[in-house]
Amino acid sequence: MKQSFSNILIYGVGLMGASLAITLRKLDRKLNLYGVVRSNKSKETIQNMDIFTSVFTEKEYLEAPNWNNLDLIIFGTPVDSIESLIRKLPRELKAVITDIGSTKHTIDLSVKKILGNSHKYISSHPMCGSELAGPENAIDNLYENKLCILTPIEGCDEDSYRKIQEFWKFIGMECLTLDSSTHDETLAYLSHSPHILSSMMVIWAERMAGEVNTDSPMPIMGGGFRDMARIAGSNPEMWKAILSENRNSILNSLLEFQKDLTSTINLLKSGEQDDFQKFFEVASIKKKFLLKN
Amino acid sequence: MKQSFSNILIYGVGLMGASLAITLRKLDRKLNLYGVVRSNKSKETIQNMDIFTSVFTEKEYLEAPNWNNLDLIIFGTPVDSIESLIRKLPRELKAVITDIGSTKHTIDLSVKKILGNSHKYISSHPMCGSELAGPENAIDNLYENKLCILTPIEGCDEDSYRKIQEFWKFIGMECLTLDSSTHDETLAYLSHSPHILSSMMVIWAERMAGEVNTDSPMPIMGGGFRDMARIAGSNPEMWKAILSENRNSILNSLLEFQKDLTSTINLLKSGEQDDFQKFFEVASIKKKFLLKN
Repeated sequence: MKQSFSNILIYGVGLMGASLAITLRKLDRKLNLYGVVRSNKSKETIQNMDIFTSVFTEKEYLEAPNWNNLDLIIFGTPVDSIESLIRKLPRELKAVITDIGSTKHTIDLSVKKILGNSHKYISSHPMCGSELAGPENAIDNLYENKLCILTPIEGCDEDSYRKIQEFWKFIGMECLTLDSSTHDETLAYLSHSPHILSSMMVIWAERMAGEVNTDSPMPIMGGGFRDMARIAGSNPEMWKAILSENRNSILNSLLEFQKDLTSTINLLKSGEQDDFQKFFEVASIKKKFLLKN
Repeated sequence: MKQSFSNILIYGVGLMGASLAITLRKLDRKLNLYGVVRSNKSKETIQNMDIFTSVFTEKEYLEAPNWNNLDLIIFGTPVDSIESLIRKLPRELKAVITDIGSTKHTIDLSVKKILGNSHKYISSHPMCGSELAGPENAIDNLYENKLCILTPIEGCDEDSYRKIQEFWKFIGMECLTLDSSTHDETLAYLSHSPHILSSMMVIWAERMAGEVNTDSPMPIMGGGFRDMARIAGSNPEMWKAILSENRNSILNSLLEFQKDLTSTINLLKSGEQDDFQKFFEVASIKKKFLLKN
């Protein structure tokens, strides 16, 4: 498998960006790989990983950017910062542009507003991650055999779209194309609200069962609670941005969940044992559908 | 590490019972290990595993039980069946009796009612399991390094209590003692309601995002949703019994969750970005408390 880009910039190197860089470097030792980070401390951490051709702080990079030497620009910063980054790009640019943000609607709007109706921006959402944050927690096979959702934005050229698909396949991913609204509505259910529900669960359980749990020689839990709690309180800065950007879809999904919770509570109040069994049987079927197994 | 029992009956050999038997056999080849199962089919499956000294169907066993040859009786059947099993025991019995049920309040009541104020019943809840069911899915290290909650019931003798603790430690577990009410209230938060919430999540997400997901080459999800969905729709028969037995505590915990959900919805409706970040930061702290890390 091949891909077309030789000079790649990852602008924002957190856990996702660093994991991507490690994978790219493993697959192609000759690639020119540039990284832009926020702080001197991150720069040092990443330089020590010895993956990038060059690493710059944001300040250094913006003083002397190399936009025109690049074939691919990947924004790895929180979604709410991407509009201001697009504004920094020069008008004429040969590079294909993407991001790895978890919401698409506002990126879609920003691209249309700033880049107009002829551009090379295709938004990407690699469906992988970790409850940990920062380049020091990078994982070398994070992207392998995962799904990447592509959201081509009105006005992007076919060739760039083809190249970016090829790029994610080169990384080991499968691709799915969704428009920005469908992406955001779907992801509210399959990722964003679940992160909120997981976070709610630890706050709720700790409040009521925390004391007994503290007195125990081990956490009072099996793998079930532990797995459901894994993504609780993930990277607060990133999730703040996701909640803000996709507030409406997330809100709608939680209002649906609220209705379902009321039904479940009524089932528990007045239901028979057979209804309880039926509830778990239905869940078992729906789970198989969703997980495709 | 040693334990005192040489003749052990596991009455009800599902995933939990079979996993326990495998562990016991691995630790002590000389143990007499008896199993009671529901169907001829299960009997055959378990005989082929070559772990038990003898396996009986329930019908066979109750026609000619060996209660008086036993040192330890472990009930591995759903919690709502345990009262009727206790009734089948002879009045005079040298064996220590336990179960591995996930709720304790009704077992507590049944033991007091049937066995009175001098007995050898200590209820156990090994905090381990799987989303799969049946002896064919048994796991050889299921109990290793997990917590076992002991609920000694009023009237049980000290010696039996000591021996049962020793037994679970021999299996590789750590022990915590809780009275039946505290057990059931705590577990509603840390296990029972989470199983319901996980099941609700797959039904909710499949209803709204199922179609888009079906059209995708891979499930549209990262590890987050997948982990939260793992316990959805687990063993419906077992969970029906748990919901019935611990209905009040589960109901109270879900009413608390409902309040929290309303607050979260209000936060999303009117909150600022900083409030969203704060929410994830609090969750991150509570998670560390609960998971003791």
